[in-house]
Amino acid sequence: MGKQSYAIVEGGGVTTPRGFKAGGLHCGLKKTERHDLGVIACEAPAAAAAVYTTNLFQAAPLLITREALAKGGVLRAVVVNSGNANACTGEQGESDAREMQANAAEALGVSKDEVAVASTGVIGELLKMDRVNAGIAKLPGRLRSDEQGSDDFCQAILTTDLVKKTSCVELTVDGKPVRIGGAAKGSGMIHPNMATMLGFVTTDAKIGATLLQEVLREVTNVSFNMITVDGDTSTNDMLVAMASGLADHRELTRQHPDFPAFADGLRHVCTELAKAIARDGEGATKLIETTVSGADSDDAAQAIAKTIIGSSLVKSAVYGADANWGRIIAAVGRAGVPVNVATVDIRLGDIVVLEQSRPVSFDEEQALEYLKGDTVAIHVDLHMGSGKATAWGCDLTYDYVRINAAYRT
Amino acid sequence: MGKQSYAIVEGGGVTTPRGFKAGGLHCGLKKTERHDLGVIACEAPAAAAAVYTTNLFQAAPLLITREALAKGGVLRAVVVNSGNANACTGEQGESDAREMQANAAEALGVSKDEVAVASTGVIGELLKMDRVNAGIAKLPGRLRSDEQGSDDFCQAILTTDLVKKTSCVELTVDGKPVRIGGAAKGSGMIHPNMATMLGFVTTDAKIGATLLQEVLREVTNVSFNMITVDGDTSTNDMLVAMASGLADHRELTRQHPDFPAFADGLRHVCTELAKAIARDGEGATKLIETTVSGADSDDAAQAIAKTIIGSSLVKSAVYGADANWGRIIAAVGRAGVPVNVATVDIRLGDIVVLEQSRPVSFDEEQALEYLKGDTVAIHVDLHMGSGKATAWGCDLTYDYVRINAAYRT
Repeated sequence: MGKQSYAIVEGGGVTTPRGFKAGGLHCGLKKTERHDLGVIACEAPAAAAAVYTTNLFQAAPLLITREALAKGGVLRAVVVNSGNANACTGEQGESDAREMQANAAEALGVSKDEVAVASTGVIGELLKMDRVNAGIAKLPGRLRSDEQGSDDFCQAILTTDLVKKTSCVELTVDGKPVRIGGAAKGSGMIHPNMATMLGFVTTDAKIGATLLQEVLREVTNVSFNMITVDGDTSTNDMLVAMASGLADHRELTRQHPDFPAFADGLRHVCTELAKAIARDGEGATKLIETTVSGADSDDAAQAIAKTIIGSSLVKSAVYGADANWGRIIAAVGRAGVPVNVATVDIRLGDIVVLEQSRPVSFDEEQALEYLKGDTVAIHVDLHMGSGKATAWGCDLTYDYVRINAAYRT
Repeated sequence: MGKQSYAIVEGGGVTTPRGFKAGGLHCGLKKTERHDLGVIACEAPAAAAAVYTTNLFQAAPLLITREALAKGGVLRAVVVNSGNANACTGEQGESDAREMQANAAEALGVSKDEVAVASTGVIGELLKMDRVNAGIAKLPGRLRSDEQGSDDFCQAILTTDLVKKTSCVELTVDGKPVRIGGAAKGSGMIHPNMATMLGFVTTDAKIGATLLQEVLREVTNVSFNMITVDGDTSTNDMLVAMASGLADHRELTRQHPDFPAFADGLRHVCTELAKAIARDGEGATKLIETTVSGADSDDAAQAIAKTIIGSSLVKSAVYGADANWGRIIAAVGRAGVPVNVATVDIRLGDIVVLEQSRPVSFDEEQALEYLKGDTVAIHVDLHMGSGKATAWGCDLTYDYVRINAAYRT
């Protein structure tokens, strides 16, 4: 990816790219007075793309959004509720998601096929549609194009997340400024029956829906798909991207000289959101970043990085600030890809703990200090080829167990 | 498997089958005065078979045992130490494992190619061979053919396991009594750098090494391979079976009318040991038994059962006695095998919580009572075909995090 081809926009979010407004309000799905209904709207028809959970039990809003995008890859808005996932709710759930879509379209004065729907919250309960509908009617009055709009939207998609997650970059295409902004919620199936990850990306770049879909898929594979909180894939995961096209440049193609800058900026936004989700995992006290290099292929490196980051034993050791390389190499060995068992190096930050698969004596005090920090980097070099990958996760703590054991009892 | 074709031998173990003695002692690898060196010996050349961890980083003892078995499938003894896994120890580790094998062979008066070696404990440290060798010299004097011998051996293979794990059955072949006894240690990579599962099965049945290997592999797939404590596969897992042939019957073949009884008895012993390991998992308060039926195939059922039993969210919910079917169906949906998303039933014990993929209202008090028990059964029926499987695991508790976070710091 070479030299950084974008600038970070501090405080930027989904309303930073031209053409986008956002907002949120409390309609009554959450028990407390927190926002639980949000919307992003685009003043132009936005080229749109989305990726969805691989879980076979996909919630109703995903079906509706998929249908909408199939009709031309154009969106004008996405409406989101938290507090109820509208998953495992059968035909009524599907009809409720359609009602959300139709009512939002009417309130915003757009076609219903231009509205995506997303939900997050409890599985298996029907939406209180009177509250949702009353909220949707008020949404147009809450739309703002400033940071407050982005903030309100971010609050509306949280469940038990502790912090809002936004990211924004600016780059140039044909010498014209282009922004990419994002918002996300996480992380893990945080609460019992609560659903995982929602991501929303806006940009004013001019790009067709087909290419946007391709690059979104590529970027997702190295960002959102490289985080693990607890290995559980939700029924509601969804990432939606909308491009207003209001930046005044020639339409992006793969051949456009500034396409790499756009892809790189999109990767940055998605990676920052993904890392924010991992760091804010249930009960997490640390972000763990695992980099695998020297693998046979990028795919092999990804498999190993994700196995390490998903290991309960590695996660517990990091929580305990234990420089436990035995667990890391055991995870490497069970990742399901070929590994040369004699040539593995492992570093924790800059501290070498294993070289050519043999233990290296290291300063335990120094390792303890490093592992007590709020970000822990695990580096594995296989010395086999040029494949590499990075994955992100969090430590496994008492609070994870508390949060997930003590919900309903 | 039909009618039970074997009787359970209460208190039986690896010394119950004719021809076997066992013993254990403290040689100094564990810090406390607990046994850390054990042996099982057979007075006859025993047809032998073994299965090993799939982890690519296999510990030195596994290489040595594999070599020994490759020379004819006959064993006279297996020598085991706990407190040190002899894993990631390079050429010195291999040479140490060979020394254990040779010294045990000399002490017992057998050929070194007839001795298997197993180790469990810390990864990446060299064995204190002076202590091991001094212990091996004393082992022949500790061999006993009674329950005490089995007990001493069981103690010698424990690391942080809380309870000894044995099982024994008796059946008849050609009208003659045949016994199958087993011993195992678990569970998970219990302590930081501690290695997982060792299993030892003895029998006086007359059976060739090739058929014993086949049936051991088959039985392992539905017993030891169906338990999960934390999803981490150790570098040292090993299961060894030895058949003394001293029961006076025609050699078992697949066509022998009593072969099913033998296979069934072996399955019982391995399943009981596997369940004991799951129940004694790190920090565990409960055994979870997940049965999947109505799948496309047994393989599909296995994949789903293992995904459910491995889900941190399901494990936390069971710890919290939370009837959280949303997490169970989410696990079904991410198991990587096709599922009809409209026809899933889920029961917790006898309590139906999902029918045809739709929530069923149930008595929460009754569910809470049931989930507070020491064994929780999760039943999933997919209504697609006749494939079925059962997997075992344990709940995820504060103690799991404590044990695994607080070891070295």
